[in-house]
Amino acid sequence: MDEADFLGRARVVVWGLGLMGGSLALALRDKCAGVIGIDPDPDVAALALKMSVVDEVSTRPEDCLGKGDLIILAAPVRGILGQLQKLSTNYSGSAIVLDLGSTKKQIVSAMEHLPENLDPVGGHPMCGREKSSILYADPEIYQNAVFALVQTTRTSEKAKQVCEELVRAVGAVPLWLDAETHDRWAAATSHLPFLIANTLAASVAAEAAPLVGPGFQSTSRLAGESMEMMMDILFTNRENVLFALRDYQQRLSELETALDSGCETQLRRLLQEGANQRNVLLGSHQKGR
Amino acid sequence: MDEADFLGRARVVVWGLGLMGGSLALALRDKCAGVIGIDPDPDVAALALKMSVVDEVSTRPEDCLGKGDLIILAAPVRGILGQLQKLSTNYSGSAIVLDLGSTKKQIVSAMEHLPENLDPVGGHPMCGREKSSILYADPEIYQNAVFALVQTTRTSEKAKQVCEELVRAVGAVPLWLDAETHDRWAAATSHLPFLIANTLAASVAAEAAPLVGPGFQSTSRLAGESMEMMMDILFTNRENVLFALRDYQQRLSELETALDSGCETQLRRLLQEGANQRNVLLGSHQKGR
Repeated sequence: MDEADFLGRARVVVWGLGLMGGSLALALRDKCAGVIGIDPDPDVAALALKMSVVDEVSTRPEDCLGKGDLIILAAPVRGILGQLQKLSTNYSGSAIVLDLGSTKKQIVSAMEHLPENLDPVGGHPMCGREKSSILYADPEIYQNAVFALVQTTRTSEKAKQVCEELVRAVGAVPLWLDAETHDRWAAATSHLPFLIANTLAASVAAEAAPLVGPGFQSTSRLAGESMEMMMDILFTNRENVLFALRDYQQRLSELETALDSGCETQLRRLLQEGANQRNVLLGSHQKGR
Repeated sequence: MDEADFLGRARVVVWGLGLMGGSLALALRDKCAGVIGIDPDPDVAALALKMSVVDEVSTRPEDCLGKGDLIILAAPVRGILGQLQKLSTNYSGSAIVLDLGSTKKQIVSAMEHLPENLDPVGGHPMCGREKSSILYADPEIYQNAVFALVQTTRTSEKAKQVCEELVRAVGAVPLWLDAETHDRWAAATSHLPFLIANTLAASVAAEAAPLVGPGFQSTSRLAGESMEMMMDILFTNRENVLFALRDYQQRLSELETALDSGCETQLRRLLQEGANQRNVLLGSHQKGR
């Protein structure tokens, strides 16, 4: 297939029909020539068809992969690494491959070893929901979300253009990054917040539940993220997460010392820094959109 | 004034017209005989009148306090301690006194020393907004919020009933606690989350802003709480906050160790504990309403 209106004429395979894959399938259905879903779980596959998330569906990748001009890998990171492995050994067609994985270094590195006829681009949409099943699939989750894109050494200009077009087609904002920068930033903005939120929830005794209010709810919201997804993230981005976590612990210790020693000026200075930095981060964020 | 429909016939003085005082004034206006506002800032006082938050207003406590059958103290904690000091020296009327302060031990202890004709109850509504000015006053913020109430050794049965009635009248749910329990629980459910959120914001570099998504936004939401309010909270609940903070740091270190040593089983166990505990805390919370 040539470049002109590639997406509009493409058959798109979405491999993995969880929240992200299901939502992307829904967002793409009227923007391409057809969406074919793959999910190993027969219940999920049946549901995807029943919910009209996809045009056709299968539990067996080997039945469907060959039909796609564009293959989207939508699974937890180590699941995507497995999908790439399967593509390397069991696939003889030609397609652009885009993934939705939460960390990029190991995935993009594995993409370098795909068969020659596959044209890979790393991707990571910065959006989600608390519930991760296809039951909550919603094309709107991509609206205005930053969608990180990472090229490999072998990514073609065509694949870059098609992926950027896809990102814009679902309402998201493409942001090209290298894998290491993505993973370092994501450790701080996304993986650390999960650890923080989860640990907060663990540290509050059940007896204190009557005083749980909106502050606790918001700060601990990420605590219940899919364990499978998060374990894959933490173990494929371990060094960056540890770095961010240690920096965070260091800052928390400074706060503790200031409060313990009753040094109000120092405590105020540290807390003002946090308040200001949040404005900086969200200000740039809004502007960036 | 006797007990029957005390609130409906009462003139209520709200001393401090920020978000919480302003919102309570609005919520009470059609539930009592009149709301009189006091705020030292002439602009705020003028605005309260213009926004019809109160029936009358003054910047001078000595002009208004005597008119109230019920006096509500609505300020940061150390501001309330100052208000109690003024009530002790400059007031000769008779009234029920309720405060809205975020920590209870020092306030309730100061209430014990009020003049005999004042009948004090400690209070703390578990609600708020990101913006703390009267401009954002909204009677709805009290709807379904837990409203902690603390009696002093000298609180009358009448004062307890009136305050409970007031809490229900604005749509909140009264919860009687002792001051030490309140402060210990609030340190974990509310003051610790602020420190966590604020430190997260401080620890993310500005360059990472493009990857800031809903997870960071939610986890760091409390970072910009009013500095004045928070400094008062931290310094009037220092021991409990330090205890909660140290327990939190300990748990974070355990996570760090598990991730650093690559012990996936241990990391999963710790994170599952956090996910489960959040369900326990919010489950009880919902049920409690």
